[in-house]
Amino acid sequence: MSKQRRIVVIGGSAAGPKAAAKARRMDPMAEITIIQKSSDLSMASCGYPYYVGGCFEDRNQLLCTPTGVVRDPRFFLDAKGINAITDTEVTAINRTGKTVTTRHGVTGEIAEIPYDKLVIATGATPILPPVPGADLDGITTLQSMKDADYLRKVADEKRIAAAVVVGAGLIGVETCEALNLAGINITVVDMLPQVLMFLDWEMAKLVENHMKAAGAHIITGNPVVEFLGVDGKLTGVKLKNGTELPCELAVVATGVRPASRLAADAGLEIGATRGIVVNEYLQTSDPDIYAAGDCIETTNLLTRKKIHAPYGDLANLQGRVVGQNVILGNHEVFPGTYQTGICKVFNFSAGVTGLSERCAREAGFDTVSVIYAAPDKPGFMGGKLLVLKMVADAATGRLLGMQCVGPGDVSKRIASAAMALHGKLTIKELTVADLPYAPPFSPAIDNFIACAHVLEDKMTGQMKGISAAEVKAKVDAREPIYLLDTRDPDEYQAMRLGIGEVLIPLGALRTRLHELPENKNREIICYCKISLRGYEAARLLEGYGWTDVKVMEGGIMAWPFPREK
Amino acid sequence: MSKQRRIVVIGGSAAGPKAAAKARRMDPMAEITIIQKSSDLSMASCGYPYYVGGCFEDRNQLLCTPTGVVRDPRFFLDAKGINAITDTEVTAINRTGKTVTTRHGVTGEIAEIPYDKLVIATGATPILPPVPGADLDGITTLQSMKDADYLRKVADEKRIAAAVVVGAGLIGVETCEALNLAGINITVVDMLPQVLMFLDWEMAKLVENHMKAAGAHIITGNPVVEFLGVDGKLTGVKLKNGTELPCELAVVATGVRPASRLAADAGLEIGATRGIVVNEYLQTSDPDIYAAGDCIETTNLLTRKKIHAPYGDLANLQGRVVGQNVILGNHEVFPGTYQTGICKVFNFSAGVTGLSERCAREAGFDTVSVIYAAPDKPGFMGGKLLVLKMVADAATGRLLGMQCVGPGDVSKRIASAAMALHGKLTIKELTVADLPYAPPFSPAIDNFIACAHVLEDKMTGQMKGISAAEVKAKVDAREPIYLLDTRDPDEYQAMRLGIGEVLIPLGALRTRLHELPENKNREIICYCKISLRGYEAARLLEGYGWTDVKVMEGGIMAWPFPREK
Repeated sequence: MSKQRRIVVIGGSAAGPKAAAKARRMDPMAEITIIQKSSDLSMASCGYPYYVGGCFEDRNQLLCTPTGVVRDPRFFLDAKGINAITDTEVTAINRTGKTVTTRHGVTGEIAEIPYDKLVIATGATPILPPVPGADLDGITTLQSMKDADYLRKVADEKRIAAAVVVGAGLIGVETCEALNLAGINITVVDMLPQVLMFLDWEMAKLVENHMKAAGAHIITGNPVVEFLGVDGKLTGVKLKNGTELPCELAVVATGVRPASRLAADAGLEIGATRGIVVNEYLQTSDPDIYAAGDCIETTNLLTRKKIHAPYGDLANLQGRVVGQNVILGNHEVFPGTYQTGICKVFNFSAGVTGLSERCAREAGFDTVSVIYAAPDKPGFMGGKLLVLKMVADAATGRLLGMQCVGPGDVSKRIASAAMALHGKLTIKELTVADLPYAPPFSPAIDNFIACAHVLEDKMTGQMKGISAAEVKAKVDAREPIYLLDTRDPDEYQAMRLGIGEVLIPLGALRTRLHELPENKNREIICYCKISLRGYEAARLLEGYGWTDVKVMEGGIMAWPFPREK
Repeated sequence: MSKQRRIVVIGGSAAGPKAAAKARRMDPMAEITIIQKSSDLSMASCGYPYYVGGCFEDRNQLLCTPTGVVRDPRFFLDAKGINAITDTEVTAINRTGKTVTTRHGVTGEIAEIPYDKLVIATGATPILPPVPGADLDGITTLQSMKDADYLRKVADEKRIAAAVVVGAGLIGVETCEALNLAGINITVVDMLPQVLMFLDWEMAKLVENHMKAAGAHIITGNPVVEFLGVDGKLTGVKLKNGTELPCELAVVATGVRPASRLAADAGLEIGATRGIVVNEYLQTSDPDIYAAGDCIETTNLLTRKKIHAPYGDLANLQGRVVGQNVILGNHEVFPGTYQTGICKVFNFSAGVTGLSERCAREAGFDTVSVIYAAPDKPGFMGGKLLVLKMVADAATGRLLGMQCVGPGDVSKRIASAAMALHGKLTIKELTVADLPYAPPFSPAIDNFIACAHVLEDKMTGQMKGISAAEVKAKVDAREPIYLLDTRDPDEYQAMRLGIGEVLIPLGALRTRLHELPENKNREIICYCKISLRGYEAARLLEGYGWTDVKVMEGGIMAWPFPREK
């Protein structure tokens, strides 16, 4: 090599260090510098809620390698030969001279650092609601180590009785759990009509019900209009409908926006999402500048639309791509994302990959979907419930997305669906998927495959499904439907909807057909606990000539509304 | 319908009842009959080892629906309108007259049952070693409810001190664990050179080491030549090398063969695997006869070879296909299998999908593979180790298979890989997969993706990997290799290979390069606990001019041989 390549990376959280480390492995002789605004490097920021919630004691674990070494500038230099400069902000990118201007956060010292290739990994900044009182003491986000330290202290001290979490997205619900574990009375508020907008409403409602059962208060569809305070200290949160929620702490988790100002100031192209525009090599509009992580916009692989997708795993994957491309030239591609995500909420997990039905329809797809509820293992192995919703493109039969919530193993099913999306598989192909089966891990037909079976049955007209929400609307509108619960009387005694249903156990149905509507064209809706027996009943009634028989998908387990019992 | 279709199903375990139930849903009016030789129906036979091991008390749970109803003839009739005849053997299929001849197991009564479409789901029968003494009291298989009842009694009574499990496949290792939990001293013996032949040797060895650490004895490469007995009772097992293992119980788990005799007697085509030959619609050589489950042969989707794949999940999937085709005509396809499998062995799980490297090479593929070891979650969330081996086709870059063992979440990674095979994905495509990430579920870059990263690095020549077995061979042959352990001294004190390695921590390597071989062409092999730091070190040394630097894949965590400490 005639001369050492100079790689400068702006940002030291996730994408930046990954790009730097990969570049180092690609070129052991390159001069690689990371410039980080804060004093911490390579923070596992997705772990903040678990630190706050007391899952572990040592905050340094958020900054450690798998073998327990803190990733500080010393570590970067010794182990990787990377120069990591902390507490230093990049104030300008000088594209003509190919330098960046830096200012030290403490000393104010200004410096000029030359680069051959520059990587922008400036991350994202929290969006704060533009309402009065947002500067009161007691309002925080959970976006930095400092935030995490503050909230952990709050949790440990146990002096706060009530807190409000503003925003019911991923970080909002994780924060809700963390503070609830500390014995704090939590209310989560959101201006949107549901928690976890990546889920369809009826799936989100199941999560919300679980959060409420765990002791959290949830208020949706009601924006914060003011933070109330006395003597500069937060005393409450006021909502648009007038509700005032007294609290000593508010955690704002209303999303983030790309930190693209520096790039914009340097004249780099910025997208409508406010993310830095990059091509598939993650190269910006300046060929010598790449960008990765929460500051860029990327492509949704199903809609082909540009989106902002601030996920920790994508930041790392993008960092690896950039680390290669800054050394080898445009070589490795980052195609985009299925926006796969997951979170733990008390004893539930909730995950998604691909498009929700709402998003798919907004994107112009003619969708067909199904909700499927079942335990994630055989009963004798202590299976736990999973509710899946699978969405397909009616035109092609291709899988468009899957959502999964419940106390069971959500993660495996979302991972399976994410790989199915990656392989562009159709529902028909999923019906004969070959997943690992043994009783400690899944039912003989995995929930993911079984869900595809029911969706295929629906697509071929073998099953006419109806969602709980549609059933509820019919009940509320007093439509003349006949609701048939096909469970056994003891099950009915223990739990029931109480919406005017008739109970006839599946095993007795053949001998009690005379109890069913004389009018063979009346709309009959069958269900049971998970609607497997409901499905059998529906087929039976169709066999006996009833013409409009539907199955309420997911049965009682997917019913998101209050039950009689 | 002018006349009720008559569907007869021979076999009532997995594929048979599934086919019958699906046919019922396809045609509520068909006359459907299951004929079952034993007295039980729809047994969850994969659950037998867990019943024996005391995971649950009530044997009926193996025969229950998810809501706890035993699937007996009454249940089949009432809930599904299916006529299930138990204790009845089909002795002949009369293809010209389209009837089957049955004989009742107790009364000896003979009957003739007509069919329009016949489904053969006769399952498989255990292979017993053809050695003297195989009829002694105390020798059993674990293939039936009766076997499970017997072994559970043995486990509960705690009168047996020592048992031998013959066969170290899936059922063998599961049985080993079940009996070990009952406090019985267990030796597992196999004629094959390793446990779990679906794994490559070095992966199987990690499982074997774990089983030994849990207290089981394992003897491989040593066939049973005789069962020893006194007064008709088993007293020991004699191996080919002369070893005699005293024991009061022997469980034979040396595989199964398709129960295809009835089909063969009826003149249906039988394959080289002894499985019934079926087309992609699972139709036999007689168009009115379908077959499904452990009695058929199917296609390995990677080698396109015909194989016998007796897996419970495939039996169910095939049953569903047959249930549709007997009603609709040839409509639904079962394309074959990736032979995905998993088992739990003490605190390890071990799984595979697709081809092991051995099988891929036998099938003629030019393979490239990598072993990757890492925790399955961030350290602060209590991650547990996983060792993955990924195998790809060097010519196309396509994934051919993955194995995974360890205490971590194996099931999710095998499921992800199985879906990747289904989508015919390449390693390059896997490097940008979008899996669900949150700290309770995985590292920021999931082990499956990270393994693809390393394999890609290997395929592009960025990393030169070497397996532990190759390193061991070089050490044993006293080759002049330079072995470099790049961990810290405290790690070295706690655990080390002791095969002549030099310890230089990665962080000190840049300042201690003078300690490395002067001969820049000497073979250097770097490693650490999981060989991530080993990889960094290798790239560094290459940067400084050493020309033959390799990384020992998976590091100490994938070392299958004894360690010094």
